[in-house]
Amino acid sequence: MNRKQVLNNATLAIQNEKIIFIGKNPPANMSAETKINARGKVALPGLVNCHTHVPMTLFRGLAEDQPLNDWLKQTMWPLEAKLRSQHVYAGALLGCLEMIKGGTTCFADMYFHEDKVAAAVEKSGLRGVLAEGIIEGNDERRGMRLFQKSVDFVRDFNGHADGRVSVMLAPHSAYNCSAELLSRIGEEASKLKVGVHIHLSESDVMFRELKKKLGVSEVQFLDGIGFFNNHVLAAHCIRLSKSDMQILARHAAGVAYVPVSNMKLGLGIAKAKSLIDLGVNVGFGTDGPASNNSLDMFETMKTGALLQKLLYENPTVLSAFETLQMATLNGAKALGIDKHVGSLEVGKKADIILVDLSKPHLKPLHDVCASLVYSAHASDVDTTIVNGQVLMENRHVMTLDEEAVMEDADRALSGLL
Amino acid sequence: MNRKQVLNNATLAIQNEKIIFIGKNPPANMSAETKINARGKVALPGLVNCHTHVPMTLFRGLAEDQPLNDWLKQTMWPLEAKLRSQHVYAGALLGCLEMIKGGTTCFADMYFHEDKVAAAVEKSGLRGVLAEGIIEGNDERRGMRLFQKSVDFVRDFNGHADGRVSVMLAPHSAYNCSAELLSRIGEEASKLKVGVHIHLSESDVMFRELKKKLGVSEVQFLDGIGFFNNHVLAAHCIRLSKSDMQILARHAAGVAYVPVSNMKLGLGIAKAKSLIDLGVNVGFGTDGPASNNSLDMFETMKTGALLQKLLYENPTVLSAFETLQMATLNGAKALGIDKHVGSLEVGKKADIILVDLSKPHLKPLHDVCASLVYSAHASDVDTTIVNGQVLMENRHVMTLDEEAVMEDADRALSGLL
Repeated sequence: MNRKQVLNNATLAIQNEKIIFIGKNPPANMSAETKINARGKVALPGLVNCHTHVPMTLFRGLAEDQPLNDWLKQTMWPLEAKLRSQHVYAGALLGCLEMIKGGTTCFADMYFHEDKVAAAVEKSGLRGVLAEGIIEGNDERRGMRLFQKSVDFVRDFNGHADGRVSVMLAPHSAYNCSAELLSRIGEEASKLKVGVHIHLSESDVMFRELKKKLGVSEVQFLDGIGFFNNHVLAAHCIRLSKSDMQILARHAAGVAYVPVSNMKLGLGIAKAKSLIDLGVNVGFGTDGPASNNSLDMFETMKTGALLQKLLYENPTVLSAFETLQMATLNGAKALGIDKHVGSLEVGKKADIILVDLSKPHLKPLHDVCASLVYSAHASDVDTTIVNGQVLMENRHVMTLDEEAVMEDADRALSGLL
Repeated sequence: MNRKQVLNNATLAIQNEKIIFIGKNPPANMSAETKINARGKVALPGLVNCHTHVPMTLFRGLAEDQPLNDWLKQTMWPLEAKLRSQHVYAGALLGCLEMIKGGTTCFADMYFHEDKVAAAVEKSGLRGVLAEGIIEGNDERRGMRLFQKSVDFVRDFNGHADGRVSVMLAPHSAYNCSAELLSRIGEEASKLKVGVHIHLSESDVMFRELKKKLGVSEVQFLDGIGFFNNHVLAAHCIRLSKSDMQILARHAAGVAYVPVSNMKLGLGIAKAKSLIDLGVNVGFGTDGPASNNSLDMFETMKTGALLQKLLYENPTVLSAFETLQMATLNGAKALGIDKHVGSLEVGKKADIILVDLSKPHLKPLHDVCASLVYSAHASDVDTTIVNGQVLMENRHVMTLDEEAVMEDADRALSGLL
């Protein structure tokens, strides 16, 4: 199937968790238990959010318009120190609800108490590529303890929730983990055959500071310890040299481009176009809602595409179609699961959304891709299907009680503050 | 009343077109014909869009991801040459519908057949500061003809639709109108006591080219011919020197900061923070939907605020409250109508929106201003009131038949293509 094709008046059939037919004329002997009429709507692959910390949905709007250091030290870190698994679960479930309503079917997450994020994935019906975060700081024992937790999480949760959970290891960053620990994590990832999710080059300042400390760039340093021999999912990548980018391309690393959060914290713009031109696979991430303040992949697509046009002073950069592909297939590839999801193809898992295009802000409808990227909102998603299960239809969420999820989150936050 | 105040459990009363009470304890003798229960919602001044070409809603998505010159020469100009008043009306009405549904209560517009935009304002119930555009190019007679039309429009439509229409003159730009014509327009605006809406410094390239041609900067040139002795609404202002900014400040010009369209066309970022710091009044504009592709002021607020944080590498720049103020009171000021609208105050016209905050992507609700700017969408607007008339309640639009407006726009576009 031509991946660029927009099919009109077509049928898509799902059996169990998979897509079994797409086209104009379904076989005569094909019957369906459940039918969804998609008149006036467009079906597309569910959106893939390549970088977030979904439990931080609980912290949305808590500390606004502050310098990064104050935000971290005065609000986020003290709160995170008090965080228990019930808070993580409440925040993660609220985030999952928001994602279902916004057409995100899969997300890559890194946080603490990640077993509770897995529980939220199980309950909500979403797909997640999850990892328990490893922050060493200057505390070697803490590093080893969290490393062990991250490894345990991989062992315990790979394939969880009917295969909707897959796993990675997740060292926070090269500035928060020692070379020794990063090497061990890399080796362990190879043994376990899992990817590694890491923050990379989050700002110009960090790029310069790390280069001074390490003598080489962050990417060169990680390359030197063989870190990229694993499948690496690198979030942010705001400041990279051309040779850094070439290293990422050579090792087929995936990059999560996180435009909205990076803007909000004033950190900079990843050169997504240059990365793509050099052969790096780039998907989109929202980051946690504490610094975004949303998990909205429609907003991220538009802002991300426009920001590249601005950066390169060229409106042809990141076309609407390329942007959609980054938010779906390329995202799945960055997460190492593109064999199973990321496009509408027979044999792939049925992770599908329907977007209602019959609204004033989407009219006239001339170019479906442009409409989806430049005009549609999260609230235009009508139906969300993951692994063949309908999680939302006509904006009614089936798997979660919306009111209860919102109340539980309010209660969990009140308990923390 | 403290304009920064968020009142909880308060009452707001409207009589005829005005706000007559805001507070906790309405007088005992106050009764109401109609009551709107705003539980779980927040009331705020209607959003003011300071720069658009609303008939271009008809061209949404028509020519995407193209270089500016191709976009103009291959698509927009040929289409505009064929444009008749019925197309303008259909496009304007669709745009008005989108604005009502997105919480915009007032917009500043510049286009051709502007009488049809006035008709759309009259029909939809919105408020508009409208102007017939004047493009001279190298054709002096055309310039004079359009100038006369612009003056006629001012005479015929000032105060139209129960005062919801106010008017300006609108020379397209200093690169599309001669010094002589701009001088005449300035003098006529003084006589007529109306403002002047103009595109100013739309890109770095234009800034440099005009400076070369004029010998001085665009702003210095306009200042030299006394143009700023009128109330000027200047759209874009991407590239200005500090002394340009000081000229705008000295003359109390209003600036429409147009972040989304400027990004999409790869043109640059207006230094809104520097303008504000120098005392210039800055509001937000969306530009026409052909280059945005939306009239969404919520999106514009978030993108505009984040873009300034990015530009100044400082997350404290443009706080959520300042951003809201730009989108309401400062916008009204830029349009010269802040005595009547732009804030919720007794005696002002009742241009009010209610935003539903009881949704997953707005929870937990910790900071109402941050919620509105960083997390809310156009689709969260529940109720839109202009001049005391309810245009939308529970997302049901009262003044327009949504289906008919969308169908008419489709038909008008088909006729053009």
